[in-house]
Amino acid sequence: MDSTTLSDGVASGVAEDIPAESARRQRTRARLLDAAFDVFAEQGVRAASVETIAEAAGFTRGAFYSNFSSKEELFFALMEREKTMRLEQLNTGVAQFLAPLVGPDGAGLDDDDVLQTITHILELQSDDRRWWLVQAEFQLMALRDHTIAADYLRYHDEFFSDLTEIVVAALDSARRRFTIDPEEAVRVIAELCASGEARAVLAGDERTFTERLSESVPAILLALTERV
Amino acid sequence: MDSTTLSDGVASGVAEDIPAESARRQRTRARLLDAAFDVFAEQGVRAASVETIAEAAGFTRGAFYSNFSSKEELFFALMEREKTMRLEQLNTGVAQFLAPLVGPDGAGLDDDDVLQTITHILELQSDDRRWWLVQAEFQLMALRDHTIAADYLRYHDEFFSDLTEIVVAALDSARRRFTIDPEEAVRVIAELCASGEARAVLAGDERTFTERLSESVPAILLALTERV
Repeated sequence: MDSTTLSDGVASGVAEDIPAESARRQRTRARLLDAAFDVFAEQGVRAASVETIAEAAGFTRGAFYSNFSSKEELFFALMEREKTMRLEQLNTGVAQFLAPLVGPDGAGLDDDDVLQTITHILELQSDDRRWWLVQAEFQLMALRDHTIAADYLRYHDEFFSDLTEIVVAALDSARRRFTIDPEEAVRVIAELCASGEARAVLAGDERTFTERLSESVPAILLALTERV
Repeated sequence: MDSTTLSDGVASGVAEDIPAESARRQRTRARLLDAAFDVFAEQGVRAASVETIAEAAGFTRGAFYSNFSSKEELFFALMEREKTMRLEQLNTGVAQFLAPLVGPDGAGLDDDDVLQTITHILELQSDDRRWWLVQAEFQLMALRDHTIAADYLRYHDEFFSDLTEIVVAALDSARRRFTIDPEEAVRVIAELCASGEARAVLAGDERTFTERLSESVPAILLALTERV
């Protein structure tokens, strides 16, 4: 599998100068990804069959296999799409809520500014209970299947590497920096979000992702950073 | 299911004044728990059948059901046993490595003392890659099955509540305290351990639990605490 190709295809979307055939192919892939996400969330990743996914997207099994070699390859394309979407949401949030508060020579934000800015940025993030559940299931499959473990780890690590870059740059513009290894700090905060989602599902907690995260993420981000 | 009974049974072990029948029952339960852990780790929690577990323990299906009403009830007994064992290991570590460094009127430890003490305490913990994998699988089952979600959450929350109490007392004796909500801090550190286990399995990292944790846990514990 070629992650560069997947990445380019997903990230650039359907540009105007792409031939009709490619545009149609992109739409087919997008419909398969949407349908697969629904089927994974409803039936579980392991239980979902290629037939069910193809049918939910309104395609034949043959159409599935002309786009993806397996359910696993489709899952990696889904991870790539989610990654791109989430990082874009984060970049948009930083540009919209943090950038106006900090000039090139601006002073650091006070803690209240930081808390409020993080909450605003989190509000832009998609509610990801379904994504979290599906990814957790796929991770467990990868843990027991070494043929997908390396690809899974690579996608996962790329995500955290890109995420850390954005967070560190945002902190820098707010005149803050992590007091521990930045990527470890970002992973810790992401794990906190993930375990919060798990508890919410188990407890039947109906609050949104953002409401829950606004209680925990800003406090730990402040605790793990210091003013420069 | 009565968690108090399970807890008492597991925590107190086989006391000398327990009648022979009860002692035999405890041994049967212990063998079933040991066998179930092996089968869960090897085949996965969902795939493991009551028949396979009973057979691996050298018992009949009937003997299984005279001790546990279901695979899920056995899993909760396993969680209880693991919880008791891990908290005891932690208490032992604190008594052995932290207590001698801090008197009732002792001064705070410096950061190097803290780092070294935590590493020593971690060395007493069982390597828990198998346990982590099995528990992650059970959690995903609970996420999709509301009949076990509440019990799972209760066991999980009890563990973190007990764990937080021990950690806060240990920090207090070392003249430190968390700068964020203590239970949240403990959960964050535990999640860091769990995600470290996942990455190690995916990456084929052969280092022990303690070796990996010694790189990350002390730093974050220091970052999330302050001297009193």
